[in-house]
Amino acid sequence: MRSAGLRHPDEHFMARALQLAELGLYTTAPNPRVGCVLVRDGEIVGEGWHRRAGEAHAEILALEDAGSRARGATAYVTLEPCAHQGRTGPCAEALIAAGVARLVVGMEDPNPAVSGRGITRCREAGIEVTIGVGEAQARRLNPGFISRMSRGRPYVRLKMAMSLDGRSAMASGESQWITGDQARREVQRLRARSGAVISGVESLVQDDSRLTVREEESGLAPEQIVAQPLRVVVDSRLRMPLAASMLREAGRTLIFTRSSDDPKRTNLEAVGAEVLVQPLSEQEEESAARSGVARVDLVAMIEHLARIEQCNEVLVETGASLAGAMFKAQLVDELVLFVAPTLMGSFARPLLDLELTAMDEQQRLVIDDIRAIGKDWRIIARPVSGDD
Amino acid sequence: MRSAGLRHPDEHFMARALQLAELGLYTTAPNPRVGCVLVRDGEIVGEGWHRRAGEAHAEILALEDAGSRARGATAYVTLEPCAHQGRTGPCAEALIAAGVARLVVGMEDPNPAVSGRGITRCREAGIEVTIGVGEAQARRLNPGFISRMSRGRPYVRLKMAMSLDGRSAMASGESQWITGDQARREVQRLRARSGAVISGVESLVQDDSRLTVREEESGLAPEQIVAQPLRVVVDSRLRMPLAASMLREAGRTLIFTRSSDDPKRTNLEAVGAEVLVQPLSEQEEESAARSGVARVDLVAMIEHLARIEQCNEVLVETGASLAGAMFKAQLVDELVLFVAPTLMGSFARPLLDLELTAMDEQQRLVIDDIRAIGKDWRIIARPVSGDD
Repeated sequence: MRSAGLRHPDEHFMARALQLAELGLYTTAPNPRVGCVLVRDGEIVGEGWHRRAGEAHAEILALEDAGSRARGATAYVTLEPCAHQGRTGPCAEALIAAGVARLVVGMEDPNPAVSGRGITRCREAGIEVTIGVGEAQARRLNPGFISRMSRGRPYVRLKMAMSLDGRSAMASGESQWITGDQARREVQRLRARSGAVISGVESLVQDDSRLTVREEESGLAPEQIVAQPLRVVVDSRLRMPLAASMLREAGRTLIFTRSSDDPKRTNLEAVGAEVLVQPLSEQEEESAARSGVARVDLVAMIEHLARIEQCNEVLVETGASLAGAMFKAQLVDELVLFVAPTLMGSFARPLLDLELTAMDEQQRLVIDDIRAIGKDWRIIARPVSGDD
Repeated sequence: MRSAGLRHPDEHFMARALQLAELGLYTTAPNPRVGCVLVRDGEIVGEGWHRRAGEAHAEILALEDAGSRARGATAYVTLEPCAHQGRTGPCAEALIAAGVARLVVGMEDPNPAVSGRGITRCREAGIEVTIGVGEAQARRLNPGFISRMSRGRPYVRLKMAMSLDGRSAMASGESQWITGDQARREVQRLRARSGAVISGVESLVQDDSRLTVREEESGLAPEQIVAQPLRVVVDSRLRMPLAASMLREAGRTLIFTRSSDDPKRTNLEAVGAEVLVQPLSEQEEESAARSGVARVDLVAMIEHLARIEQCNEVLVETGASLAGAMFKAQLVDELVLFVAPTLMGSFARPLLDLELTAMDEQQRLVIDDIRAIGKDWRIIARPVSGDD
């Protein structure tokens, strides 16, 4: 590890800005996590980080912190300053007005419609701009915001818990608890940073999970839990129990279905659920008439969560069937796998329902991280295509 | 990490003796790996390690190395010196004769019949003896020798390769290669340190594995490959193909069977295999008459490998069925699991055939180590009983 003193000063101060941005990990959605540091004569004169939507941006807070010392300073911002008149005014104009001399940016705005505008505006005003310092870390801060802006989709994490022999539940469905306290705390934190938590109705019927963030279990401070993530239920045939625990929790529950069972829908809405019926295409109507079931369109659902619900990151917590379907639809960006040091045997349920028959159909992954979480292990992996 | 200079001198010199012992990792069987360092006035005056059975013990080589400087020295030996007249003479007597003043021992001899004798002999001769310095590491050097001496069984490693979703082969049996070059090199080295490699006949029919140590693949020096490990085939019904590749390799193949098919046996023996028929008990004969099959008695087989073949460590490389049976018989001391970053899907074969139905029947494990091996991951785990 290089010490801070040996790094280029730009990297050093950007590292601090990244650290500040990280403080907003659980609270900025749907906005990105952003940090800003103002430096004059090698000294930090102002710091700021975006806390939550509707409140001041990182740059504005850093400028306030610096006051007149901002004049002639270098601004380190993890994400390109905005040039648009949002709820808090364009940050580029504020940097210019404060007399900032130089701007160092971690990454450009991922929204193709506005990308580069803040930088151009600053350059036009005579500010020297450097782009891409600490870019990899800057991108890692906001996988969801980047994904939503550039692909119109949230960043999808699939969380699973399994035994060392790759089983997620006994044949009976019994599964609580495979993993220990610390792994469950990690899951709470994954929920807390997500705009939505998605589950299949089958697992809900089995486990009656609430899918909520609990202050105590998560170990988060009360101010880090801004709102409960949207609960999303994949329920093709509208089998969601009216008595489901999650319907009595704070926050919203949104059910995606293909069923046009109006009485059931009315009952669910009466207990507070929102129901979104995906209409059947003509083709689907024909095939559903034969096979009796049309599945929720997962791609449309995921796109809906980005477009309408402004979800940056979503967490899928479900059983083998929906998990397999998410993989098949190539919707999984990251697999977070908690592995308990136990063998559950070959009668137990598989991790994923994924019907492959030859080695060359394998879904290859790249493992980004593997570490101990209490007695369990957490593996973070990303699917790759072909020879990646 | 503490530097050597801050350690107690006994720990420092024992660490060197352990390092020397490790040089015999692949070559000392059926003897234990042993290292010895002689120290006078804080300086190492002699070093030795046991290379292979029939050759000099570590203490003798260190004494030769030290010559007259052994007088008044402290001897650090990873394992209690022998007191019996073996092929190379009792080491305790040699230490006494050389005038060694003090003896530091990593661990006592695990053979209950002789344990403590070498130490007693040295004490009687006026040598000051300290026991148990670096004991944990000393024990880790020789899990197999300790197991054979104290339990009458070899130390059993079960090596498996699986996908991230816990599958070891496609439904067709296709499995080559799940893991990469570096993982295969590790497997070669596991073979090289084992007295026997055990496989079920089913996997052999599927893969036609040779189960040999190959110089190039293992990356070992020619002098580290003393002999091919004994190949052991679990073959209840004597289905071993006469054309199996392993029968054309250097080294022995020993087939355990319950079948009394004499012509097949004669044919196998004609191509060089040894066949060991486990006789059926009266009870087994009755039940075999009903169900048509009597399984190889795995406990008797494992004990045979210790008692008759003097195997310290054995490696099981097999399919889900024998692997599950080994677990069920509580014969697995260590699970070495190579995990490839891929998903093989729920049609694929399970890691283990282990028929459990409730969570409280789980086989709990403790994970000792987990690390990257090329693109793959290696997990080393030990089964635990109950609340271990």
